[in-house]
Amino acid sequence: MLQFNKQKRLKHLLTIDGLKKEHLIEILDRAETFFSPNGEIIQTDMLQGKTVANLFFEASTRTRSTFELAAKKLSASVLNLDISHSSTSKGESLRDTVRNLEAMQCQLFVIRHATSGATHFVAQHVNPNVSIINAGDGCHAHPTQALLDMFTIRKHRGEFHKLNVAIVGDILHSRVARSQIHALNILGAGEIRVIGPKTLLPSHAEQLGVHVFHDLRQGLQGVDVIMMLRLQLERMQRALLPKGGAYYRQYGLTSETLRLANKDALIIHPGPINRGVEIESDIADSPNAVILDQVTNGIAVRMAVMSLLVENAKKSL
Amino acid sequence: MLQFNKQKRLKHLLTIDGLKKEHLIEILDRAETFFSPNGEIIQTDMLQGKTVANLFFEASTRTRSTFELAAKKLSASVLNLDISHSSTSKGESLRDTVRNLEAMQCQLFVIRHATSGATHFVAQHVNPNVSIINAGDGCHAHPTQALLDMFTIRKHRGEFHKLNVAIVGDILHSRVARSQIHALNILGAGEIRVIGPKTLLPSHAEQLGVHVFHDLRQGLQGVDVIMMLRLQLERMQRALLPKGGAYYRQYGLTSETLRLANKDALIIHPGPINRGVEIESDIADSPNAVILDQVTNGIAVRMAVMSLLVENAKKSL
Amino acid sequence: MLQFNKQKRLKHLLTIDGLKKEHLIEILDRAETFFSPNGEIIQTDMLQGKTVANLFFEASTRTRSTFELAAKKLSASVLNLDISHSSTSKGESLRDTVRNLEAMQCQLFVIRHATSGATHFVAQHVNPNVSIINAGDGCHAHPTQALLDMFTIRKHRGEFHKLNVAIVGDILHSRVARSQIHALNILGAGEIRVIGPKTLLPSHAEQLGVHVFHDLRQGLQGVDVIMMLRLQLERMQRALLPKGGAYYRQYGLTSETLRLANKDALIIHPGPINRGVEIESDIADSPNAVILDQVTNGIAVRMAVMSLLVENAKKSL
Repeated sequence: MLQFNKQKRLKHLLTIDGLKKEHLIEILDRAETFFSPNGEIIQTDMLQGKTVANLFFEASTRTRSTFELAAKKLSASVLNLDISHSSTSKGESLRDTVRNLEAMQCQLFVIRHATSGATHFVAQHVNPNVSIINAGDGCHAHPTQALLDMFTIRKHRGEFHKLNVAIVGDILHSRVARSQIHALNILGAGEIRVIGPKTLLPSHAEQLGVHVFHDLRQGLQGVDVIMMLRLQLERMQRALLPKGGAYYRQYGLTSETLRLANKDALIIHPGPINRGVEIESDIADSPNAVILDQVTNGIAVRMAVMSLLVENAKKSL
Repeated sequence: MLQFNKQKRLKHLLTIDGLKKEHLIEILDRAETFFSPNGEIIQTDMLQGKTVANLFFEASTRTRSTFELAAKKLSASVLNLDISHSSTSKGESLRDTVRNLEAMQCQLFVIRHATSGATHFVAQHVNPNVSIINAGDGCHAHPTQALLDMFTIRKHRGEFHKLNVAIVGDILHSRVARSQIHALNILGAGEIRVIGPKTLLPSHAEQLGVHVFHDLRQGLQGVDVIMMLRLQLERMQRALLPKGGAYYRQYGLTSETLRLANKDALIIHPGPINRGVEIESDIADSPNAVILDQVTNGIAVRMAVMSLLVENAKKSL
Repeated sequence: MLQFNKQKRLKHLLTIDGLKKEHLIEILDRAETFFSPNGEIIQTDMLQGKTVANLFFEASTRTRSTFELAAKKLSASVLNLDISHSSTSKGESLRDTVRNLEAMQCQLFVIRHATSGATHFVAQHVNPNVSIINAGDGCHAHPTQALLDMFTIRKHRGEFHKLNVAIVGDILHSRVARSQIHALNILGAGEIRVIGPKTLLPSHAEQLGVHVFHDLRQGLQGVDVIMMLRLQLERMQRALLPKGGAYYRQYGLTSETLRLANKDALIIHPGPINRGVEIESDIADSPNAVILDQVTNGIAVRMAVMSLLVENAKKSL
């Protein structure tokens, strides 16, 4: 498979799909080593002398910034490329852009792209010593987001097989949900549910190994972890959405609907949150919502992925 | 007060208003220590391992760059966030943006915002270990600009009580002027004057501890320091301004009007200068105009503020 | 001359015109020292404590990024200024922008500007301790591009006097071609040819020391190095170009036209390439096309120029 080298070690991180439990555990365990006892992310020199290209074809604050911080905490140089301002405007192809950055001796590419499969395409064409990290491609995958979610769940709630997990929202268009479902299946979560209106669920969602609910109140019963999705208003066709606050009334996580889940259910959200759209503002700020802890964990998880890929690349040469 | 911690040490720098003389002197004295004998800014490791978030909601070259350079001279990591390109376009609030950056373990926030009071709002909601520096908020305050102006005046002309100072231009809309007036009052300047057309002066300017002049020629007589303001053509409603060069004829600092001030009057300007709009080009380049020295001093003063706030935060934990 | 200091050492790099062979050889030789035996660019501390201002008034990925990487490999701080977003929008002049960056104690300026002569203008006005590198000004010069091309030719084909070199494309508007012609003349290339349609050649091209060909097939005969130019579709007036693929049929480098050159002719292109516009896609990816090696060499050559200019500035003070 494209993500692995001949020694069957992880070479690129393009999707959670196809990874084994040991791969995920290795990354989560490694991420833990980047925290000091007081919770601060430590500085290491693991990527000293390496250059990370941060290649964002879609705008992002949180993901781009945490990858940049993660790279700097590993002592890598970071080359930020905001592609809407670059020579792709001169008509250069994605492949040629990446090859030029390879020639600049960038070893690690963090790529976000609006097209599903873009990072797979790039990974097929790069030099053997280069690793690609998918930072979100179209509606396809966002593997580091799923990994930081798993890190956060494990940290706060422990073993996955004891946990019932619900993912709520626009599953159909969400690269986050797709990666979360793969990760939860691989880690053996007790039960995985997806909750959303029919228009926002894939047609054969059950084949992904999940139980489908169209009613939030039914779906939340007996759930230990609630993974909210961002309603990507800026990306959706409005026709898919019920009008005038109806989505919030039906699928919003509020103090009333939260009561149906298990006591102290953990609340996860990839951010940025839409207060009063998919989640009640006070719920987003409540102790069981670990949305900001996810951000912190994201730095450590991204450090883990980056350092692992560079190590594996070195071993395979 | 919001700017101080329980030990009454400076925790945030939001405004000059409410500071004591000792606070200002401490910063000016500390800034001096960052110059080598030949006038170069030195490299220190005082913020090693810290991350500074440079959060600019308004465009800026000079202020953003000098904060970035100051942070790097202190060996901090810098995260530049040009907010017009970021996920505020996804509708996230200022408060949520800042909380996410806190979760990324940024300890120091440099914030410029078009809304007066924006940095106060942020400071009310941040974690105890985080410090905010106001890099300009609406028409309210720009405290590091006033501090670098005071540093420059003290360096070139010495003691404040011997100096008559005039601030010339659009006082009404100027966050720079407001901070300068506070600083000059606190440091005990001999006399503080504001000079400008009625439409560009606050209605009860005298209450700020200044003498008001509407005639530049009268106002400049006996003055030792002339603090020109930038005519912010891009921000003002044109109706407030006399048309067709009349402003320059009435309020422009020229070789003719400069002659009315005391000999060797020091000329200060926050930049960028509008040559031939508020100041004659040759005057801007003359020896008594220390406009570029202000820029250099700005790096040292910002290093002083940044390092002081981080030290005070450490002591208070 | 403006580029030299009183000791006749290179002070700025504005144009290849007027340099001597020893200047070029010094830079090429120095660039070689920045490669480790396995071809990786090494990290040095030659510019530790220095600040490089990357001042791009025109968009660029490759040139800006390689200058940034080169500066970081020399351990300089880099201040990236994307000028379309900066206070030039507040109407500040190029000269005042540069003077402010000087006041921020930037020692080295890398400037790209749409106006021919812009970097000469700046170099006339900077402080004695500041050096300017022209990263492309209008249709005038792009000296570091020509130097990296020469580095690449020398590395792959050795001595210049044995080589016949053809430059193909829009010579008229190309700052790259102008700098290449100067460099090839100075280094004593066997024969220098320019090939292009009459509308895209300067009127008295022969005065530049080149042979002019309007027919690609004639021009390529007996050539050892083919330097393709990018057809700058985004910059040209379309009227200058034949319509509907006619340019490619007449002047495109294809497997068919390439056969007319000497065996194993080296193919050079400054990038980004327009596949199927000025060059056949397979030819661009063939072993004799060293287009990506040029990119790598560009980092070392820029390190050489930067470190040389700073050394010369130090000696002259």
